[in-house]
Amino acid sequence: MTGDRAGDYRILHEAALRDYLAALPDLKVRLGGDPVSWAITEVGDGNLNLVFIVKGARGGIAVKQALPYVRLVGESWPLPLSRAHYEYLALSRQAELAPGLVPALLHHNEKLALTVMELLEPHIIMRKGLVAGTKYPRFADDITTFMARTLFFTSDLALSAAEKKQGIAAFAGNHALCKITEDLIFTDPYRIAEQNRWTVPYLDGVAADLRDDMDLHIAISRLKLKFMASPEALIHGDLHTGSIMVTDSQTRVIDPEFAFYGPMGFDAGAVLANLLMAYFASAGHEGAPGDRAAFEAWVLETVENVWTGFAGKFLDLWRGSAAGDAYPVSLFGGEKGTARLEAERQAYMQRLFADTVGFAAAKIIRRIFGLAHNIDFELIEDLRMRATTEARAVRLARTMMVETGAFRTVTDVTGAARKLRNWMPELSG
Amino acid sequence: MTGDRAGDYRILHEAALRDYLAALPDLKVRLGGDPVSWAITEVGDGNLNLVFIVKGARGGIAVKQALPYVRLVGESWPLPLSRAHYEYLALSRQAELAPGLVPALLHHNEKLALTVMELLEPHIIMRKGLVAGTKYPRFADDITTFMARTLFFTSDLALSAAEKKQGIAAFAGNHALCKITEDLIFTDPYRIAEQNRWTVPYLDGVAADLRDDMDLHIAISRLKLKFMASPEALIHGDLHTGSIMVTDSQTRVIDPEFAFYGPMGFDAGAVLANLLMAYFASAGHEGAPGDRAAFEAWVLETVENVWTGFAGKFLDLWRGSAAGDAYPVSLFGGEKGTARLEAERQAYMQRLFADTVGFAAAKIIRRIFGLAHNIDFELIEDLRMRATTEARAVRLARTMMVETGAFRTVTDVTGAARKLRNWMPELSG
Repeated sequence: MTGDRAGDYRILHEAALRDYLAALPDLKVRLGGDPVSWAITEVGDGNLNLVFIVKGARGGIAVKQALPYVRLVGESWPLPLSRAHYEYLALSRQAELAPGLVPALLHHNEKLALTVMELLEPHIIMRKGLVAGTKYPRFADDITTFMARTLFFTSDLALSAAEKKQGIAAFAGNHALCKITEDLIFTDPYRIAEQNRWTVPYLDGVAADLRDDMDLHIAISRLKLKFMASPEALIHGDLHTGSIMVTDSQTRVIDPEFAFYGPMGFDAGAVLANLLMAYFASAGHEGAPGDRAAFEAWVLETVENVWTGFAGKFLDLWRGSAAGDAYPVSLFGGEKGTARLEAERQAYMQRLFADTVGFAAAKIIRRIFGLAHNIDFELIEDLRMRATTEARAVRLARTMMVETGAFRTVTDVTGAARKLRNWMPELSG
Repeated sequence: MTGDRAGDYRILHEAALRDYLAALPDLKVRLGGDPVSWAITEVGDGNLNLVFIVKGARGGIAVKQALPYVRLVGESWPLPLSRAHYEYLALSRQAELAPGLVPALLHHNEKLALTVMELLEPHIIMRKGLVAGTKYPRFADDITTFMARTLFFTSDLALSAAEKKQGIAAFAGNHALCKITEDLIFTDPYRIAEQNRWTVPYLDGVAADLRDDMDLHIAISRLKLKFMASPEALIHGDLHTGSIMVTDSQTRVIDPEFAFYGPMGFDAGAVLANLLMAYFASAGHEGAPGDRAAFEAWVLETVENVWTGFAGKFLDLWRGSAAGDAYPVSLFGGEKGTARLEAERQAYMQRLFADTVGFAAAKIIRRIFGLAHNIDFELIEDLRMRATTEARAVRLARTMMVETGAFRTVTDVTGAARKLRNWMPELSG
């Protein structure tokens, strides 16, 4: 079966894609006009796939096709096409659970590893907006709805154990994508690895410290084990600000090809980590001292609102619709039972917060010392300034990972970040 | 496919079984003589299946066939035949990992849900021996080898994440058997449930206390969630002393039809729980006061040896062959790294011990208030005496589940058991 699929696969560049789409009546109508007039542009700036925007007389669509290798690296790093299947599966589920917060699915071809979605316009990648200092007033409310609903409704709190096991099995084959995370986030930044890079020479000392920090190595290894063996819910798996498209009034989560049943804190941590990096990087994007102060205040406020909003919505779902096999309501009758279960819900969220803090730290460190960096820091042209802002983020991340228990609430995190805003690290070189 | 299988399934009673076996050349040779002379006896005393012993002129075999319902209850409680497939899968893996500690597999027919194994003779079910006051000098060493090897080599410490996910998916379909555990162990004993039973009237008050004990309900619910969502290793899933056959010199683990990827502490806890129940029940089997004192001392010593032996062997495997993706050795180089990793191994075992203590408690309570009881207590004819020994076990179990952290070492468990040996509970009625 896999062999057949592979046999039929071909990369659809512009001409072939035009013919392919023209043969699909629904898409042809949606685009409108003569297919030869459609404007097709390859816009993929991610690490893995081809992405085309196709515009016709009537409307536009986005087409994503997986390549049999990692685009960022090339054919020397093969990667299974099946990830397009898992992405499609995850996107379908997310669309059911969080309608309006993911792009509408228009077409999927498993053999071609190709998915067609609504064109998100005028949305931009949120990370670009954050670099520009743009606030997104809808973001916290939307992302917390997405997180709370996709995580709660695929967890043991909402599903029977049998349904949950079916879900786990359905995504078990996506292990190649999980392995990218396991290697690039949870292992390589902490050891000598060919693909690591960082802002040299300024962060050479910090990089060496990380490689020698055994408390940190234990902490990251515990997080890695949790990532591998805690199928708590269907997680997005790559929920950074480059996987979110926004306007002032809309939020759309894209690119769930890393989806699998994993720890919820990995998604929540990804959101917090990327906001925190936007916060620290902001100092490197100032035109004049302090001219991004309001933006930075909004970022930290958003960090707080994301956690409290997520926790609040997740708890409300739990209180309202606990149909899963975990914590059966039949064991918590009466006033005493109700109160005790509510206390346990709070304790559950406290454990999830600790996971979130740890995973957020891991996501920060990988973006500064691992293979894949982000434009928040990369667009800071003054390398010394870039390294300074990166070192601040790493200092917070190290504490978050090793002394996780010291962060009891999200304001402990934002407070610590604020204190490091102007800290001057010792740099190498 | 499933439909076909179901269509071909038929229950093989004596005559049909004789014909079936006679058509299998290897088994025919092993049994020897004319098939009409084979002695076929149904001996199943478990809750779920048919078990036949077949003896010929030359040798004997054991034949196990799953029924499409729970034997203990009848056709009103259907149960999928696929459990025979999972049992076969688990038994095959256990045979590779712990050779000589499970019965040799001779034949398997998936459509018939039928497995043929070597006849274990003169082995007896260990529980029967314990009721009789028999010591088993090989037991602790053998069972700890079985546990350490089957659990370690199917864990993230020994497998790649991809292999582990394949294993999880391969057993995900065994959810109907998991659900029996989820209901009968982790839920029903703590609420009004038709299938519950206990030694009436004497334990009526204790049963009511359990149903009203919200700290206990939280603790059992945490354990249930751990059971459902912690695929740490391929566990046996039903590792009580009724699933172990012994002689003075041999130990064989049987009946892994509840196998799936779950928490290791569930297996370890099952062994400890059933030894602890044998200990408490022993007082009810005395001929004269104190005549089983040496046996009881051996039981508690065995509880200690099982945990320390298991932990020691598991740690040795980890130190010697850590090929899995968890705790990669490349992060723990040098003297400092080696020491820190060793400390983490100890911390890992400490967490596993806490799980073990909790699960052991759950296994005790279900045998006294749930559907399935055991002969350790059931063969105590004096109901007041039976209830007294049961109440002692339950008192220990309640503490183990709610104050798990107070049990730091296994001698904390055996010490607490010893103190309750002659405790006189208040009984109802």
